[in-house]
Amino acid sequence: MRTVQINAPYLLFLGDETRATYVKTAQGLVDWVGDKCAGQYRLTAQTTDLQLPDLSIAQAQELGVKSLLIGTAQIGGGIPDNWMPVLIEALEKGLDIVAGLHTRLSSVPSLVAAAKSSGARLVDLRQPPNDIPIGNGRKRSGMRLLTVGTDCALGKKYTALSLTKAMTEHGLNTTFRATGQTGMMIAGEGIAIDAVVTDFISGAAELISPDNVASHWDVIEGQGAIFHPGYGSVSHGLLVGSQPDAFVVCSDATRTHISGWPDYPLPSIADVIEHTIRIGQLTNPQIRCVGISVNTQALTGHERESFLANLAAEHQLPCVDPLVTGCAPIIAEIERQF
Amino acid sequence: MRTVQINAPYLLFLGDETRATYVKTAQGLVDWVGDKCAGQYRLTAQTTDLQLPDLSIAQAQELGVKSLLIGTAQIGGGIPDNWMPVLIEALEKGLDIVAGLHTRLSSVPSLVAAAKSSGARLVDLRQPPNDIPIGNGRKRSGMRLLTVGTDCALGKKYTALSLTKAMTEHGLNTTFRATGQTGMMIAGEGIAIDAVVTDFISGAAELISPDNVASHWDVIEGQGAIFHPGYGSVSHGLLVGSQPDAFVVCSDATRTHISGWPDYPLPSIADVIEHTIRIGQLTNPQIRCVGISVNTQALTGHERESFLANLAAEHQLPCVDPLVTGCAPIIAEIERQF
Repeated sequence: MRTVQINAPYLLFLGDETRATYVKTAQGLVDWVGDKCAGQYRLTAQTTDLQLPDLSIAQAQELGVKSLLIGTAQIGGGIPDNWMPVLIEALEKGLDIVAGLHTRLSSVPSLVAAAKSSGARLVDLRQPPNDIPIGNGRKRSGMRLLTVGTDCALGKKYTALSLTKAMTEHGLNTTFRATGQTGMMIAGEGIAIDAVVTDFISGAAELISPDNVASHWDVIEGQGAIFHPGYGSVSHGLLVGSQPDAFVVCSDATRTHISGWPDYPLPSIADVIEHTIRIGQLTNPQIRCVGISVNTQALTGHERESFLANLAAEHQLPCVDPLVTGCAPIIAEIERQF
Repeated sequence: MRTVQINAPYLLFLGDETRATYVKTAQGLVDWVGDKCAGQYRLTAQTTDLQLPDLSIAQAQELGVKSLLIGTAQIGGGIPDNWMPVLIEALEKGLDIVAGLHTRLSSVPSLVAAAKSSGARLVDLRQPPNDIPIGNGRKRSGMRLLTVGTDCALGKKYTALSLTKAMTEHGLNTTFRATGQTGMMIAGEGIAIDAVVTDFISGAAELISPDNVASHWDVIEGQGAIFHPGYGSVSHGLLVGSQPDAFVVCSDATRTHISGWPDYPLPSIADVIEHTIRIGQLTNPQIRCVGISVNTQALTGHERESFLANLAAEHQLPCVDPLVTGCAPIIAEIERQF
């Protein structure tokens, strides 16, 4: 396994952040892998409280915590001075520091020195492994489902996590596979696929969902969007390397344009399905769409119901909002088709 | 301009290489931009002779040479010890060193020191610029032609160079745009597009063919192949960011499989045309195919003639082998369509 590895259990570091939206990485960890989260570290009494035990570094160490995860986004991505004493203490006590910050932990000499003295690791989630091979295109054993999108930031990770949970509860042997930094903290491993040099992106995707037993499902977190003028190549490489048997299209009920690219209308779901099949067939001729996942938070209950029903009729596919309706219709479709 | 820039005239460094195939980078420079090549530097009398003046570093400096180009491929890509005195002398005398080696020039302390002392540059062609933006997808002025392929290594660069030469001779205002290291030495600038982090690849392609006057043609060197299981994302990002008006498909008359990927049959030219249009339409709805360029070196004269004629009839497009037939039919098609 040559993906980036994160050791649990975790201590979630929240700095002095008081705004809930800026600790959503940490909140996601509590929501999805609460059993891996031993406690939280808050620099002030006013810091957002995730209802985990407040632990000192010494207490975390006694409880067997392996990693301090930086669970707050910083504007600019740098490391504030008032974080440093805690991070250095954690490293000295042997805890790995795990972060997806723009500033690499490994570029800060005092952190490097403290890590070296104890043997703890600095885990920069946006730094891909060094030894990624070129994609070989060989068929791997086991089943794979990839979430794709009409755009970025409309629920591909959330859909993949919801599907993983529901498929597991349904008795399917299922693993969530992470391709971005928050997903990696949840999964405990993965590769930030958009940070990989283009020559190696399909090879990186191949590492993320390795050979498995025939009945096992990997549910792979999608990135970008195949018709995106900036990030489409990320989606292309992830699709080719993932060789999915099934995919779910994620969209947003009210979005009309690619977010941040006002010249680009949102592509139709039908076009995304057709194009994903066309590209995906290269490495898996059996690829098919098994459902549509829509963020409907801007709709009322009645609007949502008719929106999803119309979409289902149009595409002859199960359509859900995982946050509201759950994923059962998509799981039924997977069972029907595979 | 934020592409990598190379200053001419050049001194071509050939080391002690005696095999012609290992100096083909330098031979390409002599063939395509002989006027930029002031001379050659050979470590031994047995070194391959490109019929350029043999110059010492001092003589090159007197003639106004600006860059020493490493024109020989090394197995492993490293820098042999017996090159070092010459490279250091060149740097000390103010010549830039330009290389596309796997070992980065900037990772060799003695070269860094010598460059620093004189102000000369170490130009690693496989190191993309640091400040590449995300692709914005905005339409740029001027016309663009991209060479695409059914596979790697079957003539996309050669076709682009041949087209540039023929279009220029035909009176069209045309510039060759380089996306790989040999192309960059010929063009004097460019970006090694396959070495760019995937998030930025379409942005890099946008930098390579900037806004220009309406009647100007950029002829852009293609990379990879859109149906390639390893390198397809490079082709995808280059296509989206180049927003070509026209493309030429490059293929090989006798190749049956993706070179090095025996499980993957060569895609049909018709599929490559259809798929290139489908993806290219995202950033240029007017994209169209203007010809097919085939490497026919394995065919006899009569076989070649009927092969190209059959292909032209099948696709209703001009079909050439630029090395043998020239590019005139494709230029006629460009004039007819634009």
